[in-house]
Amino acid sequence: MEILDLTGLAQQLFDDIRELSSDGVGVTRDSYGKGESAAADYLRHFAEKEGLHVDVDRAANLIFSLPESDTQQPAVWVGSHMDSVPQGGNFDGLAGIIAGLLCLVAQKQSGRASGTPLRVIAFRGEESAWFGKAYMGSGSLFGKLSAQDLELKHRTSGKSLASYMEQVGADTAAIASQEMLFDQSSAKAYLELHIEQGPIMVARKIALGVVPGIRGNVRHNRITCVGEAGHSGAVPRWLRHDAMFAVADLITRLDEHWRVLLERGIDLVVTTGIVGTDPSEHSISRIPGTVHFSFEARSKSHDTLEGFYQLMRTECASISRERGVQFEFDRRLESSPATMDEKICAALAASCERMATPYETVPSGAGHDASLFANAGIPSGMLFIRNENGSHNPHEAMDIDDFMLGVRVLADTIDHL
Amino acid sequence: MEILDLTGLAQQLFDDIRELSSDGVGVTRDSYGKGESAAADYLRHFAEKEGLHVDVDRAANLIFSLPESDTQQPAVWVGSHMDSVPQGGNFDGLAGIIAGLLCLVAQKQSGRASGTPLRVIAFRGEESAWFGKAYMGSGSLFGKLSAQDLELKHRTSGKSLASYMEQVGADTAAIASQEMLFDQSSAKAYLELHIEQGPIMVARKIALGVVPGIRGNVRHNRITCVGEAGHSGAVPRWLRHDAMFAVADLITRLDEHWRVLLERGIDLVVTTGIVGTDPSEHSISRIPGTVHFSFEARSKSHDTLEGFYQLMRTECASISRERGVQFEFDRRLESSPATMDEKICAALAASCERMATPYETVPSGAGHDASLFANAGIPSGMLFIRNENGSHNPHEAMDIDDFMLGVRVLADTIDHL
Repeated sequence: MEILDLTGLAQQLFDDIRELSSDGVGVTRDSYGKGESAAADYLRHFAEKEGLHVDVDRAANLIFSLPESDTQQPAVWVGSHMDSVPQGGNFDGLAGIIAGLLCLVAQKQSGRASGTPLRVIAFRGEESAWFGKAYMGSGSLFGKLSAQDLELKHRTSGKSLASYMEQVGADTAAIASQEMLFDQSSAKAYLELHIEQGPIMVARKIALGVVPGIRGNVRHNRITCVGEAGHSGAVPRWLRHDAMFAVADLITRLDEHWRVLLERGIDLVVTTGIVGTDPSEHSISRIPGTVHFSFEARSKSHDTLEGFYQLMRTECASISRERGVQFEFDRRLESSPATMDEKICAALAASCERMATPYETVPSGAGHDASLFANAGIPSGMLFIRNENGSHNPHEAMDIDDFMLGVRVLADTIDHL
Repeated sequence: MEILDLTGLAQQLFDDIRELSSDGVGVTRDSYGKGESAAADYLRHFAEKEGLHVDVDRAANLIFSLPESDTQQPAVWVGSHMDSVPQGGNFDGLAGIIAGLLCLVAQKQSGRASGTPLRVIAFRGEESAWFGKAYMGSGSLFGKLSAQDLELKHRTSGKSLASYMEQVGADTAAIASQEMLFDQSSAKAYLELHIEQGPIMVARKIALGVVPGIRGNVRHNRITCVGEAGHSGAVPRWLRHDAMFAVADLITRLDEHWRVLLERGIDLVVTTGIVGTDPSEHSISRIPGTVHFSFEARSKSHDTLEGFYQLMRTECASISRERGVQFEFDRRLESSPATMDEKICAALAASCERMATPYETVPSGAGHDASLFANAGIPSGMLFIRNENGSHNPHEAMDIDDFMLGVRVLADTIDHL
């Protein structure tokens, strides 16, 4: 049998799970809650009906495999997450699980298991929308969830993450003590198929993307530029310390550096999502004395993040001298980039070429469970599927044919690992 | 007698009026209200005690003159305003009235009237803080207050400007019909002494400034830059339409043009007092889709205002093309610059030179009653007195010696007109 024969089944799985987690606007599959568990139950029943073996790990994630598979041999793991944000889209997370399951179903139905055994893992708790923390399901496996994290409160019920995890059977004592719950020797590789959350592939008219890395970030939630307020008519330029002109100058300098770095082929995005003069002193005829703003840079390179951060601080110092303002920084926050394994990326690319499917290299700006595996030293790779309208909203739009092309590449890659 | 002999009297007048209008923080002399009327009563009693003639015009402003002065001969008018902003400073407005009165007192006490008769006018209602409208007292004289303006509501009581004006005896029927209430043939010139509201003279260590003109302005209360929101990690630079980067680019371009225009000797100040991303879509990891901002340019040249405004619009168009954003403009607001009379400026400068007092030419960024006289075609001039900490706050700090130097120059200028 051919993977493409499973297109109808794929559509059915997406439709059924969309329906059972519909909230009237989009889908809501709350981490460790009703929506996510409904999806988990559906997937378990589906897999058992297809004659697959279903396991639950100590963090309550589901693991699917061929019943006859060799549990001693290191496997190729394929995974993604079952949960969604509130009023989210149907494909973010779910596509990667269905892709893995289709590969297993194809192996089962054709009676041809891959040389390296395949295990499919359906994570719980990837979205930070519910407890303010991402990668809870995969993080638990690698000792990355702390006792403090387990005390995080649910966004609406106010109950702890621990209580939610216990309700679905997770071993919160082991998780709180940051025990390694994943046997690294069981994994030869980790693969994740995911919709692209940005607009690149639609713009480039390319269905598949091989992800070289997942961007890390460096952030300040709030930087304050302090200048000096004054009468807009009465203070000449040489005596001004205009906080807004200073921040505009900074943003423009960062934008210029960014442009130049991109021309040198460096991976980087820069955003000031929140910028504002102080509402308590707002007046058209008042020189702004204070401006608050956020700063975020993302890159798949740790060195780029560090370099760009230092560049930002240097420009702040330079602007401070030139304009007589001061920049005050809150705590620097950061998350590490994850590099996908070169051989796995090459294997995904080779599969695309065998299928005569054009692909591009598309770094992931958003985080994924794959980064946990990659940073644990497990060779990892990701395949992006073209998707319109971004993610985390009901307007996600992935074409089923693009998806099936991705599943073929995934299955072929598994066969060649 | 010498003007400088009146230093103690000047100090007494400032102290008495500060005390009677003190609000515990600064002074509050509300337009057409209790504070302003208390100052008016004090000034009237003082003038009468000094043997001066006191008149009230049809807009309830006070007019002081020597009792023996020729009412047929065109006079030099010296004026400023009695009112203050809430919790304001004591010198903004009052200094100009006291200066004029001291000149009259000197003429009276010495028995030497100036060749051109002197009339001192104490305006009511100059500050926009109370009814949202400035120059009510001087504007009434020139038919510049409309029936609609008279319906403006007081900031706290909510009662109309008309009712306030009537309570102090103004002829609101004549004002509403925009009758000319000032006989232009009665004025040979108008002079106003005022504290500087900016920091230039303190920075330059110069006590006196001759004002060549009062800046007009062109404004937008709210310009909206519309880009496209998106995931900060997943949208690369070439697909972004970041509204904040676009506005920063605009501000930086305007700042650069401003710098270049100043180097060419052009009078201009540029301010974006209010700038902000949209709080309803605030997130550090979200590319801002919308930014609101205000725009103000001030100049003493109408052509500069118009030219800079067009430059701003051109830069918006250029940025729209380059960044794929749109700028949406609310109603353009403007107020005309006023040019001070060259001969009067030269007379003020000549007096400074006779007194061996250094002075500088300092354009006024803030508006003044003098602009009403200048724009009515009456040759007008202004003399600035050095003042620390700006105005419209309790920290105004004018040195009494600087003030008396200004009064000497004013008296000498009157003698030479």
